[in-house]
Amino acid sequence: MSQWIRRGRLHRPLGVLGGFLLAMALFSSAMAQEPTTDETVADLVAALDSAWLLIAGFLVFFMQAGFAMLTAGFVRAKNTANILMKNMIDACVGGLAFWAVGWGLAYGASDSSSGFIGMGNFFLNDFEDYAGWFFQFAFAAAAATIVAGSLAERLKFSAYLIYTVVITAVIYPIVVHWAWDANGWLTAFKEDPADLVMANGYVDFAGSGVVHMVGGFAGLVGAIFLGPRKGKFGPGKRVNAIPGHNIAIGSLGMFILWFGWYGFNPGSTLALTGGGAALAAKVAVTTTLAATSGGVAAVLASKLITGRYDPGLTINGVLGGLVGITAGCATVDPWAAVVIGGIGALVMYGGVVLLDRVGIDDPVGAFPVHGCAGAWGVIAVGLFSTEAGMAAAGYAEPSKYGLLVGGGAEQLVMQFLGLGSIMAWVVVTAGILFAAIKYTIGMRVPEQEEDRGLDLMEHGLDSYPDFGPTGPGIFSAANGN
Amino acid sequence: MSQWIRRGRLHRPLGVLGGFLLAMALFSSAMAQEPTTDETVADLVAALDSAWLLIAGFLVFFMQAGFAMLTAGFVRAKNTANILMKNMIDACVGGLAFWAVGWGLAYGASDSSSGFIGMGNFFLNDFEDYAGWFFQFAFAAAAATIVAGSLAERLKFSAYLIYTVVITAVIYPIVVHWAWDANGWLTAFKEDPADLVMANGYVDFAGSGVVHMVGGFAGLVGAIFLGPRKGKFGPGKRVNAIPGHNIAIGSLGMFILWFGWYGFNPGSTLALTGGGAALAAKVAVTTTLAATSGGVAAVLASKLITGRYDPGLTINGVLGGLVGITAGCATVDPWAAVVIGGIGALVMYGGVVLLDRVGIDDPVGAFPVHGCAGAWGVIAVGLFSTEAGMAAAGYAEPSKYGLLVGGGAEQLVMQFLGLGSIMAWVVVTAGILFAAIKYTIGMRVPEQEEDRGLDLMEHGLDSYPDFGPTGPGIFSAANGN
Amino acid sequence: MSQWIRRGRLHRPLGVLGGFLLAMALFSSAMAQEPTTDETVADLVAALDSAWLLIAGFLVFFMQAGFAMLTAGFVRAKNTANILMKNMIDACVGGLAFWAVGWGLAYGASDSSSGFIGMGNFFLNDFEDYAGWFFQFAFAAAAATIVAGSLAERLKFSAYLIYTVVITAVIYPIVVHWAWDANGWLTAFKEDPADLVMANGYVDFAGSGVVHMVGGFAGLVGAIFLGPRKGKFGPGKRVNAIPGHNIAIGSLGMFILWFGWYGFNPGSTLALTGGGAALAAKVAVTTTLAATSGGVAAVLASKLITGRYDPGLTINGVLGGLVGITAGCATVDPWAAVVIGGIGALVMYGGVVLLDRVGIDDPVGAFPVHGCAGAWGVIAVGLFSTEAGMAAAGYAEPSKYGLLVGGGAEQLVMQFLGLGSIMAWVVVTAGILFAAIKYTIGMRVPEQEEDRGLDLMEHGLDSYPDFGPTGPGIFSAANGN
Repeated sequence: MSQWIRRGRLHRPLGVLGGFLLAMALFSSAMAQEPTTDETVADLVAALDSAWLLIAGFLVFFMQAGFAMLTAGFVRAKNTANILMKNMIDACVGGLAFWAVGWGLAYGASDSSSGFIGMGNFFLNDFEDYAGWFFQFAFAAAAATIVAGSLAERLKFSAYLIYTVVITAVIYPIVVHWAWDANGWLTAFKEDPADLVMANGYVDFAGSGVVHMVGGFAGLVGAIFLGPRKGKFGPGKRVNAIPGHNIAIGSLGMFILWFGWYGFNPGSTLALTGGGAALAAKVAVTTTLAATSGGVAAVLASKLITGRYDPGLTINGVLGGLVGITAGCATVDPWAAVVIGGIGALVMYGGVVLLDRVGIDDPVGAFPVHGCAGAWGVIAVGLFSTEAGMAAAGYAEPSKYGLLVGGGAEQLVMQFLGLGSIMAWVVVTAGILFAAIKYTIGMRVPEQEEDRGLDLMEHGLDSYPDFGPTGPGIFSAANGN
Repeated sequence: MSQWIRRGRLHRPLGVLGGFLLAMALFSSAMAQEPTTDETVADLVAALDSAWLLIAGFLVFFMQAGFAMLTAGFVRAKNTANILMKNMIDACVGGLAFWAVGWGLAYGASDSSSGFIGMGNFFLNDFEDYAGWFFQFAFAAAAATIVAGSLAERLKFSAYLIYTVVITAVIYPIVVHWAWDANGWLTAFKEDPADLVMANGYVDFAGSGVVHMVGGFAGLVGAIFLGPRKGKFGPGKRVNAIPGHNIAIGSLGMFILWFGWYGFNPGSTLALTGGGAALAAKVAVTTTLAATSGGVAAVLASKLITGRYDPGLTINGVLGGLVGITAGCATVDPWAAVVIGGIGALVMYGGVVLLDRVGIDDPVGAFPVHGCAGAWGVIAVGLFSTEAGMAAAGYAEPSKYGLLVGGGAEQLVMQFLGLGSIMAWVVVTAGILFAAIKYTIGMRVPEQEEDRGLDLMEHGLDSYPDFGPTGPGIFSAANGN
Repeated sequence: MSQWIRRGRLHRPLGVLGGFLLAMALFSSAMAQEPTTDETVADLVAALDSAWLLIAGFLVFFMQAGFAMLTAGFVRAKNTANILMKNMIDACVGGLAFWAVGWGLAYGASDSSSGFIGMGNFFLNDFEDYAGWFFQFAFAAAAATIVAGSLAERLKFSAYLIYTVVITAVIYPIVVHWAWDANGWLTAFKEDPADLVMANGYVDFAGSGVVHMVGGFAGLVGAIFLGPRKGKFGPGKRVNAIPGHNIAIGSLGMFILWFGWYGFNPGSTLALTGGGAALAAKVAVTTTLAATSGGVAAVLASKLITGRYDPGLTINGVLGGLVGITAGCATVDPWAAVVIGGIGALVMYGGVVLLDRVGIDDPVGAFPVHGCAGAWGVIAVGLFSTEAGMAAAGYAEPSKYGLLVGGGAEQLVMQFLGLGSIMAWVVVTAGILFAAIKYTIGMRVPEQEEDRGLDLMEHGLDSYPDFGPTGPGIFSAANGN
């Protein structure tokens, strides 16, 4: 097998003609015995499917940059480094936690047939599927980082470290086991369709519920325990807008997230061969249409309601559309993606209004985007999935499909069962977690730290030392500072 | 077919050995009848080609982030949110317009043989080629967003919304039909080469003319109707520089665009098999060399002419090189790419000087980059394309090639015909469009809004509320605001 | 061969069914004679491997944006445009230099068997392997741009131009020839394993030494010749922190670099078939774990040592982990990647402390990250590589592997030989280069330019004209400016 790398390093014959020569060379010398055509074809199938998982995983990983820019743009300048640190460190801590424990609880080989939890392959022991681990790591990191936004501008860094370990090691992986492992009790991927809990099982193609609702509801619970930022509410019933400090990087974050979503959704075919490529292409289209529809719905709604074209709502509208289509991207028709995305944005908008009304402070709107539009996405599967879509995406009981397109109510009921189960799990476990943190090391920074900004007190710097009244000023550095 | 997704979700055997096992499993159980080797190979061909379109489309889509950062960096702080909103919303509105109408006019099945317009597959009806639609959507969005820069800092948001619908639904798709649909009157892709209008037909591999000239000339027309920003020209013949507010995000935009161009140009092979991969590799090289040459030419020219190494011109020089090579990236030799890119940057520079001289205000240089260098790129095909290049890229009459490399003048004449046709179409249709907007709802924001910035009046916020004299100041938020 | 592009442009039958039809069409009409199944399979192998190189190369190229944002974020506002210009122009100049000369010295066909230098294929003459060139160009550009950070805020732009030409044309390519060309004296890729200099030859899978040490040590030498920034050291033994102006874009740069590293390391398999995909997947995992471990190690170390969670050290910790794993990413186990990444971050930290102690000023920490962690990565190969890892990655003498996992000391000695050779080469050649620049055109900007910022004097602008005391102020533009 040493041949291929040597050939590679030489960087020689990779053109068309080269391809033929090279294949000939492979055929004649690469292995003790020449691979047969069928062996070469099997290698191609494995290589192409694996590469798809890797490339899609790269894109999903890049969403970390998107979340970082989005949340940084939506907070005040004095808390910029803090939120960035949280975004950076949750990817790091989350990666180690998912390596040590998370994967094992999600997909670990297990004798148990309870369907509640996996058990095995901790620390990647006895493990081969590196591409699968990498892809799932990127998803776990996304689920974790969603929460940072809800808790921004007042959560202690140490509390965030603890929270991140628990969600990536335990809370999120168990939901994955339920929904996506062949042994999970909710899963649509049972070896024997007769074992499905109901209808097609819980259908959530790329994770409106598994990923986004988990992050969104964990953030909601955290925000309740943490309380609103100083000055957000009152006096009286007044809600005070606290504008983000940099809409440019916020917009950049949205675009990076949209870009990364093309790994998140199309990549969730997990393969290109055997129909995967055609399905991935359809998913790219439904994802695109839902994002665009979400953006348009939000901008029009904001104009109608507030009289102006609101950038923050537009950004979150696109994201609401994307979150909304994530569960059904493979099973609904393009026109339905337009509807789902638009409603996803409106649901997000409703979530923003609701949080303001009940006095919960979510600085970047993570719960409205990921929690509310995520729940909508799970439901939408039961409303709009077509029979052909269910079949093409490989679900086992395609005769049970969307209520609004003639498929009866059974799948919709199944979706509510999944939604309710995930919501209950996250609310309970995140509740315990945040309560434990709050009443031990504490969640909230001291008031004077919140006033001054978390950057200086937690991280010893100002994020923009050359700008602003108290900084040295952009050019005062002329004195040699 | 339900097997592949179940296998996928299990995330098990995707290693090398796994590949073999898996292929065996596929062979024995995936379908009622085992696929033959030839069927598996055909599936691989389709999957690989489709994946290439998708991945390239993801990169082209990401250019939206590049355009957003580039144009935001080149405007003043007070208009940042406005230009970002335009960039976000044109992707959204453009996606819906291209779904509903645009694709149908570009590639829709049509009985007409006039070659002027497609007709069919509106709203993706009776449609299968999702990967193709997605790739073309990303191109349409790019064409639309180019215009935002020319009209920055003074165009009403509502006018931009209308403009975006029309260019992505009608103006751009019809050019695509002419140039890239097999029925188009200019196309190089006639079923029967005897039907080519002349030489190889209009050769524009990735769209110097079809995409960039369309955006650039529409922007020029709009800028003429709109008039210059207050304070740009005068008193007398004086031209006042209005510096952009953030060169860092401007540079980021350039790098993202260059990165995305590797989807734009190499992706335009539309396939990897049958020679596509080797062609894509060559295109990656010519694209790279043109970009680098454009950057070097611009930085040296700026040093010679102005005495300093100018960042804005460097950024636009790279982009001018990229736009210039886009038409000929598949058919010219690497050395010619160096020449074309360098001249592309100089043509861009000339465009900047020209606009200043005639008193047209294009804040980010969209016309010099996309219009001028785009036209140069179309012409360069007729000057530098080699016979071998024409043949390898699949054009039908490779004996007619570049004038400067011995191929005669016929292809060059053909290129001028294409260039003139596109230019005339865009100038006329964009002229009608902008006239209609100007004399109904109006194009230009009120003067006091232009003074204060479009962000506050159109969008109700300041983009950088924590910075600057009138903002609260980066640390004044310490008072609980 | 003209068939494939015509088919492509029609954008029709690329679905699953389409794939079959299309393959049938190809079989029956694309070539004068139908390709056999074996020919089609050989084409698939070549296409897939070539596409992998291209896509990985796109990601590596995008690291340019990462370096630009990282270094820009770490300098002061007054020098932002200057460092961005250096980052932009080194990609441009470097591309042309690598085209004209660099590739030829690295991989050029040569009769010489000295193993010191390649000779041939200058200007891509007599050349076919465009994908290989593109991939290597991206690496060369990375090596060059690393240096910009070490020399930031005081190096003349003209000196940087000259330096960039020399490193991409000569210094870096010769190291590549030594280590990665089949004729190189250090290489692990000899045609005949008996010719290996020792053990497996120098094992540096993706370039901890070849790329990062070259950039890091060249930067160190340059920083010594250039001297520290005014105000960095003193009075006495005092070290003054000079905070970067924008941690947001600095963090973005880190995330982009991490993203691009998935092209850098997994892409260095250079192929997907014949085992490449499985190896690339493992490399993605080791790369991820080292990055996360580096981030965690740095944030904890910074908390322990300084009492705060330091963002700059966290960013450089992730990068130190990535640089550290780059040499051994294919040959070590995942647990070892965690160890290597963590130590990489600590080595980086040690490098920062060391530079401060000896009075060398490296504004962005390029030497600690790329030089120190790069050297560590080269050594780590000789400590942690497993026998199975060496075999799977195609090295010729897998029985000689990591000292700490039972493989004896021979490979470790080999690694020190490689490390020492590269270090000596770079220190000597970069020393000659910077001495020549210093004593002819000069390296350093005048003191008043350093005080005022290089942006205004070298580039005629301020990077943030709307912010800060001496700018017009964000809203003073209301007067029509």
